[in-house]
This record gives sequence, structure tokens and C-alpha cells, in this order.
Amino acid sequence: MSYIINSLLDTDFYKFTMGQLVFKHFRDVPVRYAFKNRTAKVPLGRIIKEADLRRELDHVMELRLGNSEYHYLLGTYEYKERMFREDYLQFLKNLELQPYELRYEGDAIKLEFAGPWSSEIQWETMALSIINELYYRVYMERLSEFERDAVHAEGVLRFKRKVDVLKKNPGIVFTDFGTRRRFSFDQQDYVNGVLAKEFPATQFRGTSNTYLAMKHGLTPMGTSAHELFMVMAGIKHNSDESIRQSHNEVLRYWWEEYGYGLSIALTDTYGSDFFFLDMTAEQARQWKGLRQDSGDPFDFGEKAIKFYEKHGIDPKKDEKIIVFSDGLDIEMIEKLYERFHDRIKVTFGWGTNLTNDLGFPALSLVVKAVEANGNRLVKLSDNLAKATGDMDDIARFKSIFGYSGDNYEECKY
Amino acid sequence: MSYIINSLLDTDFYKFTMGQLVFKHFRDVPVRYAFKNRTAKVPLGRIIKEADLRRELDHVMELRLGNSEYHYLLGTYEYKERMFREDYLQFLKNLELQPYELRYEGDAIKLEFAGPWSSEIQWETMALSIINELYYRVYMERLSEFERDAVHAEGVLRFKRKVDVLKKNPGIVFTDFGTRRRFSFDQQDYVNGVLAKEFPATQFRGTSNTYLAMKHGLTPMGTSAHELFMVMAGIKHNSDESIRQSHNEVLRYWWEEYGYGLSIALTDTYGSDFFFLDMTAEQARQWKGLRQDSGDPFDFGEKAIKFYEKHGIDPKKDEKIIVFSDGLDIEMIEKLYERFHDRIKVTFGWGTNLTNDLGFPALSLVVKAVEANGNRLVKLSDNLAKATGDMDDIARFKSIFGYSGDNYEECKY
Repeated sequence: MSYIINSLLDTDFYKFTMGQLVFKHFRDVPVRYAFKNRTAKVPLGRIIKEADLRRELDHVMELRLGNSEYHYLLGTYEYKERMFREDYLQFLKNLELQPYELRYEGDAIKLEFAGPWSSEIQWETMALSIINELYYRVYMERLSEFERDAVHAEGVLRFKRKVDVLKKNPGIVFTDFGTRRRFSFDQQDYVNGVLAKEFPATQFRGTSNTYLAMKHGLTPMGTSAHELFMVMAGIKHNSDESIRQSHNEVLRYWWEEYGYGLSIALTDTYGSDFFFLDMTAEQARQWKGLRQDSGDPFDFGEKAIKFYEKHGIDPKKDEKIIVFSDGLDIEMIEKLYERFHDRIKVTFGWGTNLTNDLGFPALSLVVKAVEANGNRLVKLSDNLAKATGDMDDIARFKSIFGYSGDNYEECKY
Repeated sequence: MSYIINSLLDTDFYKFTMGQLVFKHFRDVPVRYAFKNRTAKVPLGRIIKEADLRRELDHVMELRLGNSEYHYLLGTYEYKERMFREDYLQFLKNLELQPYELRYEGDAIKLEFAGPWSSEIQWETMALSIINELYYRVYMERLSEFERDAVHAEGVLRFKRKVDVLKKNPGIVFTDFGTRRRFSFDQQDYVNGVLAKEFPATQFRGTSNTYLAMKHGLTPMGTSAHELFMVMAGIKHNSDESIRQSHNEVLRYWWEEYGYGLSIALTDTYGSDFFFLDMTAEQARQWKGLRQDSGDPFDFGEKAIKFYEKHGIDPKKDEKIIVFSDGLDIEMIEKLYERFHDRIKVTFGWGTNLTNDLGFPALSLVVKAVEANGNRLVKLSDNLAKATGDMDDIARFKSIFGYSGDNYEECKY
């Protein structure tokens, strides 16, 4: 039987953009990532066979960057001419992932990755894609061939309704962010193949999946994730103040590395209220825009516009952009577009519901950085259901970052 | 590009059961068949290109019975041990169809087949399958690849709903009668492949399509059609009385040829009221059952039960059967089953809606015998929308057969 992950590029593009920064500055920082199933009611450990999971993870460890994949990354020009440096690509070519740590505990799957940040950063989306696909395979294998046809048919028709709405609204610009929680590689591949044909590149901007971007001639999309802020807080862990300052340090490192091209800031690691205090007026002017990934997106949009205006920036005229990426579906996309598109550029990083909408409920799975330099890591976000870290640490970080929110909403995905 | 009809077995089985009888008794009777589009609002001649139609019909004329096809027919045992005689199969092996007569007249396609009955009888379903598939191809070609995926997905889900209902009602016994008005060969092939796997042979009894029966290991199903009665009336055309008597003559020829195995009588050629007067008590006892193909199926069922009871037959105990085959959908099948299954065996010959339900409206196309031995032919049926023949001839036949009905209902298919 074939494997799920067959290329080191079958991952989110931001693993490489972040990876290069990490490689330059923090390559040997010891980190630990942990898998977490936020859909607690699903006993993953009873559904996915350990041998199947090991087989897939072992195969990832054997993957090496092929010559054409190397070419593709070396030739990436969309954000900055040859944005990936030779030394980083050589490192990727020789990438050796540390062995994963897997144990089944009752109904739960414990899966962790520990080692130098520059290599272990690569596990996240591959592990998630694997666990998701193995999970749905179990359900698909219980069906007859015809019932499986019906699942795929349902998927096509649900996708068709999305496509129809998007065609009626050519102003809605969107991107596939669905690698990690896709129903299967084939489904994400199909979705991207169709979108590439049905929409101009001005509306369907591309995909976060580097391999599929290469395959379908799309723009590889993505900027950075929470782990940058989280691990940086683990590195700069001397005091509350140094932790607080680590947030803006990430922004400065990022700007130094990629400048305007990739300057979309993720806003919710310690809550967006803190973010809007922390981002300087100069940064607000320089950076292209912001990414919203938790909490109420309408509230966020209003806050973002006020934030720009406070700094004397006209978000419409100065072409600031908000990337919405939290649990989107087509109805939410339409509403957000309606609400904001006259006031600020909006675009949609559409994940789970784009690549995993065939009638099965989706799982909310994550792989999060939990430790760096021996320090436990924390994410707060604008929805405490998405917070990660020990209770004590979360309390401490709330205090450090002046976090006063109490929004708690079960994650859809 | 591939052809639509690729085997002389890609036709309804009854073309061979009738064909053998015709070959034995009436092989050289000159007959004429004519294509008719009962969906008058669809300008077929403007939709289907003449060159495409000629290409497909020309290809049918080049087809010859292959060795495995010959084997299959020779080995057909389901109704009577080796039911096809060597001389008839040799004739089929050397079958030469007479050239079709095709002309485009404005928006209409005029297509006729004239020649010896024993060969020309073969054109009907092949011509219909071709015209149907060419018609839908035109619409499919206007769609993008993804839109075509969505059409097929719609087809799978509509089919799935049928399968689900039938699984909940394991007593509903049915047969595929969908060759002539299928969406495409591939669709009928798919439907039969799924039904063969999803249902036991006691519920899905088989298919009228001989090629697909062979391919999927199903029972080839079918008995006889209106043309037997119609052409016989053209042969026995000396007087009103001989025309009237030709109806029962067909029943006697058929019984002599196939006996109990294929003794399902088609009841509506001249209206079922006449049929129930014409079939004798002995025939009612001998024959397995009746096929209903027009008019109100509930009325027909009641009449059929009364008919048997009048002749001292207990339709349930004596295992008489009604084959419903007129414009069925799953709702109608459920209702008919509910109404009758405790009182008489019922089975369903499910055509258009089984093999052509992908979201496009179906066409009501027929190829009917219009002339035999120089005499114009007539069908009345229990729905005058399905009557064929000149107005004068129809009036004369109404009088000959004591036809008093006035039911006229637009054909669904």
C-alpha cells in the first residue's frame, strides 16, 4: 500500500519560511513538540492502529529532498528573489528528523518530537496529515466501494457549492490552508487541481501546501505560526519582561529575514489585545497585514481597522490586509467579506472545511511546541479553548501579557 | 474517440428472445421501424450533429458477434436449457443490418430502419442508446471537467438514495430495464456493477442489457415488446377479425417457443381491457404473469387480480406476477409494492430513472415498428400519449379492439 506523505514538500510552506529563520538564528535550540487531540470525545488510540501510524511516520523519516524539489525551493521568487538561501537548502537536503516518540495510552495517542528546532519544526503538518488520513481511512474501509463513491460524491457536491458561491463573488480572494486536517492527500490534491482550473490566480491565490503548489503551478502561500512566538519566549525566558519583549523580537527577526514580502503578522499568540499594543506604529506602517486565527473575527476586524487608524494609517488606501484563517466555512467567508472588503483588504486562508468536507465530522488535532531550552511553552490565543500550556504557565503568561479575555469556544476544527 | 455501442449484446435481451421467434416464423417479413422523439420541445436535430450520429450508426453496422458473445448466448440457460438454437445464433453471427435511413428535417431527426424483420429488429435499443448518449454528451461537453464531476456526483448520490430505500425494503425485487434511455453506457455499467455487489440476486434480479448481464454475471432479463403484437397485426391484416385474433396468436407463438420460462405477457398493446378479455383461462393459468407498461398501475394491479380471481386463480398462492415497467421511480416502486405485495408477486422493471438520473431531464424517445408487409401498424396502450400510428388507423384499431379509454398523460420518459 502506498504512503500518505511522499515528499518533504507535502507540508505547509511556512515550515520552510520559518525553518530558514530558525536555521539561521536558533538551529540547535532543543525543542519539544507534542500532538494533541482537541476532539476529546474521539478515542483516536482505539481507532488508528499503532502499526499503521508507525509505518507512516517511519516513512517520513526516510524521505529526502529530491532534485526537482530542491530546484523548486531554490527557484521560489514570489515573495523575494531566491528567498531560500543555499546553506538552508543544503541543510534541508540532508535533513534528518529525530525519531518520533510514540506511545498509546489507553484511548489516547501520545506523540512527541524532540530535538534541534531546525529539524523538528518539520514534523508538525506531516504528522497531522498522517493522523487525519489514517483516521478517515478506518471509516472508509468499513464502507462498501459504492458507499465510498457516495462519500466522494458528497465531497464533490459540497465543494461545488463553495465554488459556485465564490464564482458569484469574484472579489473574495482565498487560499488553501487545508494541509494539516485534510481528509486525504488525494482530496487536497483534487481540490487544488479544480481551483487552479476554475479560478484566476487573482481570486484563488494559491495553496499553503508546497508540493501541491509545485504540482499545480500555484503560488505557495504562508507566513509564520504561533510556534515562532512560543519558542522565542522559551529562549528569552530570563524574566517576565524578556518574555514579554520576545513577542516583538519575533516581528523584528521576521522583518529582517523577509521584509515586506512575507510581512503578515499572526496576532493571537498572547491575545490580539496585547498584539495591538505591542506592534509599533512603524511596524504597522511597514507590515502588509495581520492574520486572525482565533476569537471573534468581526471584533478582530474592527479592532484592526481602529489600530491602523490610531497610527494614522488608512487601511484601505494603504492596502493593509487581514488574513482570516480560523475555522472558516463559505458562509463565514461571505459575511466577513461583506463586512470588511470596503474598508480593508481581506483574504481567506481556508483550511479544514475546504479540504475535509465530505460528510464526516472533522477532528481538531494540533501539534504544538511545548518546550524550548527546557522551558515550558504557552499559547493563549483569543479563544481559551485553543490555549496550550500548563495551567500555571497559562496563568503566568496571562499576567505577563495583560490578558483579560475569557472567551472559550469549542474548536470546530 | 470511442464508440457508444461496442457489442451486439449491448442491447435488451428481449431483442434476442423475440428475434429467435421472428427468425423461425417471419424472418423475411418486410418491416419498417421509425424513431420518434416524444419530448417534442427538445429540438434534437439542432443539438446532435448529424456526423456524430452517422458515425455511431455506421459503427453498429460493422459490429459482428464475437466468439465469447456467441458462447454466452449459446450457454443461456436461465429460462430454458440452451434456449437459443444453433441456426438462430449462426444467423446472428452473420447478421447484416440494412442501412439506416437518416435525414435531418429542420429541428427533427428522421431515422428509419427498413428490411427483413429478423435483422431490423436489432436496431431499436442500439439507436436509442446512441441518440440518448449523444444528446447528453453535448451538454456534458459544455461543462468544465469539475462541473462534469459534479454531475456524476449528483448521479451517485441520487443512486445512493435509491439503494438505501431498496436495502430498507428487501422484499422489493427489481430489474434494470434502462438500456434504451440510459445517460451513457458507462452509467448503466456503473449502476449494474454496484447493484450486483450491493444486493443478492433474489432482490436485484438482473438486467435487460445482455452485455452487462454477461459482464457482471447477472441474469439477462426480458420477455417481449409491443412490436410482436404490432407486426403480427400487420402480417394478419386480411380483416378486422384477423387483426383482432393476431393478438392471441402472439401469445400462442410465444408459449410454443419458450413455455413457462418467459411467459410474462405484455398487456397494453391494444389496451389492457382487451387483453383481459383476450387471454384465455388456460393461458391465465399457464403463464407466469403480466407486464404493465402504461396507464394507472394501481388500476392495472386491481384489474389483474380480479382477472385471475375470475378464472379461479389465487394470484398469491399460484405465484402469479406483475412486472411494473412504466416510468418508475423509487417512490412509485415503494407505493406499488406496499399496495400489492401481499396479494400477488410484484417485480419492477426499472428503466430511465435508474440509469439516467444525474440531474438532467430525460427524453422520451422511442423506435417503433410502423409498417409490416406494407401495412401501417398501430399501438394504443393504456395511455394515448403513448399511442403510435396514423389517426385513422388508431381510430380503426380502437374499434377493432373495443378500446374505450381516454387516458392521456404526458410521458415522463
